[in-house]
Amino acid sequence: MLLRNPVNTSAGCRSKYSAKHASRSLTTQASQRPLYIPNKIDDPNYIRIFDTTLRDGEQSPGATMTSQEKLDVARQLSKLGVDIIEAGFPMSSPDDFEAVYAIAKEVGNDVHPDGYAPVICGLSRTKFQDLDRAWDAVKYAKYPRVHTFLATSEIHMKYKLKMTPQQVIDNAVAAVKHLRELGCNDIEFSPEDAGRSDPAFLYEVLGAVIQAGATTLNIPDTTGWNLPHEFGGLIEKLRKNTSGADKVIFSTHCQNDLGLATANSLAGALAGARQIECTINGIGERAGNASLEEIVMAIALRGDQQMNGLRTGIHPVHIYPTSKMVMDYSGMMVQPHKAIVGANAFAHESGIHQDGMLKNRNTYEIMTPESIGLSRNPEDAGIVLGKLSGRNALGSRLKSLGYDLSGEELDDVFKRFKALAEVKKGISDEDIVALMSDEVHQAQTVWELLDLQVVCGTMGMPTATLQMKGPDGITRMGVGVGTGPVDAAYKAVDSLVRVEADLIDYSVNSVSEGIEALATTRVVIKPAGRLSAVSEHASLGKVQRSFSGQGSHEDIVVASARAYTHALNKMIGWMSSRQSSPSSGSKTTSTTASSVTSTSVRNSSRSAPATVSGKAVAA
Amino acid sequence: MLLRNPVNTSAGCRSKYSAKHASRSLTTQASQRPLYIPNKIDDPNYIRIFDTTLRDGEQSPGATMTSQEKLDVARQLSKLGVDIIEAGFPMSSPDDFEAVYAIAKEVGNDVHPDGYAPVICGLSRTKFQDLDRAWDAVKYAKYPRVHTFLATSEIHMKYKLKMTPQQVIDNAVAAVKHLRELGCNDIEFSPEDAGRSDPAFLYEVLGAVIQAGATTLNIPDTTGWNLPHEFGGLIEKLRKNTSGADKVIFSTHCQNDLGLATANSLAGALAGARQIECTINGIGERAGNASLEEIVMAIALRGDQQMNGLRTGIHPVHIYPTSKMVMDYSGMMVQPHKAIVGANAFAHESGIHQDGMLKNRNTYEIMTPESIGLSRNPEDAGIVLGKLSGRNALGSRLKSLGYDLSGEELDDVFKRFKALAEVKKGISDEDIVALMSDEVHQAQTVWELLDLQVVCGTMGMPTATLQMKGPDGITRMGVGVGTGPVDAAYKAVDSLVRVEADLIDYSVNSVSEGIEALATTRVVIKPAGRLSAVSEHASLGKVQRSFSGQGSHEDIVVASARAYTHALNKMIGWMSSRQSSPSSGSKTTSTTASSVTSTSVRNSSRSAPATVSGKAVAA
Repeated sequence: MLLRNPVNTSAGCRSKYSAKHASRSLTTQASQRPLYIPNKIDDPNYIRIFDTTLRDGEQSPGATMTSQEKLDVARQLSKLGVDIIEAGFPMSSPDDFEAVYAIAKEVGNDVHPDGYAPVICGLSRTKFQDLDRAWDAVKYAKYPRVHTFLATSEIHMKYKLKMTPQQVIDNAVAAVKHLRELGCNDIEFSPEDAGRSDPAFLYEVLGAVIQAGATTLNIPDTTGWNLPHEFGGLIEKLRKNTSGADKVIFSTHCQNDLGLATANSLAGALAGARQIECTINGIGERAGNASLEEIVMAIALRGDQQMNGLRTGIHPVHIYPTSKMVMDYSGMMVQPHKAIVGANAFAHESGIHQDGMLKNRNTYEIMTPESIGLSRNPEDAGIVLGKLSGRNALGSRLKSLGYDLSGEELDDVFKRFKALAEVKKGISDEDIVALMSDEVHQAQTVWELLDLQVVCGTMGMPTATLQMKGPDGITRMGVGVGTGPVDAAYKAVDSLVRVEADLIDYSVNSVSEGIEALATTRVVIKPAGRLSAVSEHASLGKVQRSFSGQGSHEDIVVASARAYTHALNKMIGWMSSRQSSPSSGSKTTSTTASSVTSTSVRNSSRSAPATVSGKAVAA
Repeated sequence: MLLRNPVNTSAGCRSKYSAKHASRSLTTQASQRPLYIPNKIDDPNYIRIFDTTLRDGEQSPGATMTSQEKLDVARQLSKLGVDIIEAGFPMSSPDDFEAVYAIAKEVGNDVHPDGYAPVICGLSRTKFQDLDRAWDAVKYAKYPRVHTFLATSEIHMKYKLKMTPQQVIDNAVAAVKHLRELGCNDIEFSPEDAGRSDPAFLYEVLGAVIQAGATTLNIPDTTGWNLPHEFGGLIEKLRKNTSGADKVIFSTHCQNDLGLATANSLAGALAGARQIECTINGIGERAGNASLEEIVMAIALRGDQQMNGLRTGIHPVHIYPTSKMVMDYSGMMVQPHKAIVGANAFAHESGIHQDGMLKNRNTYEIMTPESIGLSRNPEDAGIVLGKLSGRNALGSRLKSLGYDLSGEELDDVFKRFKALAEVKKGISDEDIVALMSDEVHQAQTVWELLDLQVVCGTMGMPTATLQMKGPDGITRMGVGVGTGPVDAAYKAVDSLVRVEADLIDYSVNSVSEGIEALATTRVVIKPAGRLSAVSEHASLGKVQRSFSGQGSHEDIVVASARAYTHALNKMIGWMSSRQSSPSSGSKTTSTTASSVTSTSVRNSSRSAPATVSGKAVAA
């Protein structure tokens, strides 16, 4: 009765062996992943995990990632064993197209030893132009999929689409047929706002798209309105009453507005859905999506006993590194009490006396931190890095954290690592991740921050002086006075960069283990004044993109200035890629590079010479 | 079909009237709150909300609140209409006793016009000494309750309690009888780890405590192990098979380790539980507890249609101010994508073009921000504060945000408000809350930070110079060099305060609307070296307490130094109250005050004279 699960049984022991054993017993399932066939799964208990961090997650305010960042995340999702990666919404912007294309080409063809390669999926509205673009972006993957959608609730059809129910059916069917004609045989269709749609109308729409050739039917609770028994009931009804339901896979897509996304997804699976859509850390618009880590661990721990043997192909040991990477790149942090990946999720021992519950770890722990790839103990982590650690030791530690670097990239991080090791004894995994997010995979550098000096305090008049290298290679000096040291530094940056931007969020990564650790700051900005960075949002129409940047340094003010510079570079890069005409996939990379340069030149031409900007000083 | 709920129907309109209407329709229910009788509820659909933010929430690492802060939160919970406030674990420490006692006396006797006053509950183990102390703490409330618990799972009984099942039954029964003898007739019993206990044994224990006089049976899923259908099934089985079950109220207490706490609680209610235990923002150990706001809003929005008419007595319009206050006082922030109260929960419009979905707000919104007390529009907020706003305008805005100030307290905030208004145009609610958390209800001031000056940047050697007033009223000057400006400032503080503390967390409240806003920083520290701040944890035995402090200032380095000073003051205060002998409730306040003074003197006597500390400079 008490410990019915092998993982749980071993959770009480703290030896390295048992931690490894725990991970192994959780990952054994993955090796038996059934062969991928779009519209059926040979194992009736296998749940496909469809990750939409790069699409639904990324389209949330401030979470915009660069193409390079998206590629990193996709690689990590492939390690994690995600069955389907929704890599983006290619019609949204040229930048989105490029990211999906690059992921399809690389990650979509990275076949693992067991034959697994992730399906790469692109989202598309039902317009033919959208569908063509989505197919062009994903088609080079080993398993390409296009996901198209159309709203089916009365309120969405009437007010948003301004379509009759019959028009909705016709459009959906035409879209699926068009995809078939393009040569796409892995087609997902979503009736948007299904959670508030008339079930009878859903039977009709879904029956028609199955007939037309759809292979996966995804049922979104778009507004997070459903309760678990209600959503499970909907899936059951749809499977029972839709003609041809036995020929396709049903999928869940649950928003978290009432905090029920994980429970709703599991209720869907219990009612027969065999694909769950979710995101790392549960990010997404408003209250986000179902959290991959919660769903995967609930199925891993309770699938056998409480879900008739359900299982997934995920390797939980990669959960924590993936979670960290998504936090860094999206700028969307999780709260300390976030399930599975929050800082406190395994912190019940924090501050507890040795004689407390150490001997009874399994009394309060249903999984080990090691099983999700989190090693709290330096010994468990295998390598402790310090002043004397070499380039290879850093490289292999980085690899275990999910970053696969070599050559110049590794050299860059190693240089910074050495500098940090001079100041700080014992470099933790957190420090390494912070170094990474600062140095590697930044947006292409348009402006570079060189030196910065700040005077501040209670006396007022905080002043920042800095040197930056512009896109023309010339070093200029700027100065700013602000309400605080960060504001002063930003005004000094503005005095040189001269791209109008509104700061919409500023945050500092919480620092543990002493204040001498690296501070990582994040800013989110959006273009101001006459500038704009508009892209197509899947459901909401045109949206103004915002951009996050992060910077790490022992000095919080320097970290803040780096973050701001990073965000500005990201914004300049994105806007210049938008200005390049939509190109075919094979040419995009070079196009972007050249257009960034041209923007850079445009920017630098607007820069004042190396004098103090009147605006900055007066502010 | 599409909008079955009156709230939802009005969500589409943005006029002030409709927002108010929405709130009103959500709060109407509260006016019909049934008369409080411990073991029964006249309305079969009424769910009691039992808030344990001050007990289960507060015992999580770093969330320690001062007695004054707890009293503030309790007042706010009473406004919110919480049926039962679990105010603490009186045996834990003298400070906890005092807080529960003060809440019982004041908030427990604050009878609202409709006759409602919250039940004030204290937690207790089954030891008679604990029970006596808990009863002494709550007995002056109009409706006092004691909540006692004992583990019933095989693993907890064997390894933690080292008791036989029969001993567990005997202990539980003896505890309930003892409480009856003390005169307590509102008794809650929890079989700890019920989620992993043998149901047959639970029938036996619960039947015995009902027989002995328990009035509420709370069923905790202590490790967050259960799935919704499983937990609902457990409640159903217990109600069916426990003798005397119809004479008591069943309650849920769900931890969130798999992200299922809200769903499990609702499943419990659907299965007949009529009390739900939860916390504001879902705070608590590990992954926290069920979130009050999620449960309340799920029942408010879907109770009629999907939960057979279930309802609560909560006024949702106070949710947001309460959430903010708990974030400030506990130092536990919520993530941007937290349901209901996260910064993005209503932010789907952020960055969206005017022509987007503004006209269709209800297509993506199931409740209005106004319904939970969040006004995004300055016009909606009623008052926009600025340079010319007077003391009364500030007072009434504060009141609407949940802070009821007058006299000197209001004067203090007003002074700071005026200073901020000189620097910043248009003071937002966030600014006001930040001012509050900095100025009012800080721990008693032992050390006061006066002036601070910092030089930092990429050149290294960040240096802080500061002046502080000690508990002896003497102003001293300190200096520190650190790895960054914050570290330098902390070293400068250490050079004067000389209380050994380890910094275990440092964070900065995310700033929106431009960087010139106030930065609010939080630190969590715990005593280091020979110092310790041990208290009894309800389940885990002795724990080392940690203390959070916050500070706000336009200058992030000044804010950081204030936060650190605040945390040190809180720690010194708590430790001195612990050193005072446990006193009877009526004397506690004066005891604390005097013991703080004595500690202060002890501290100051260890302070170096107004010279530069060698340690600080060398660091």
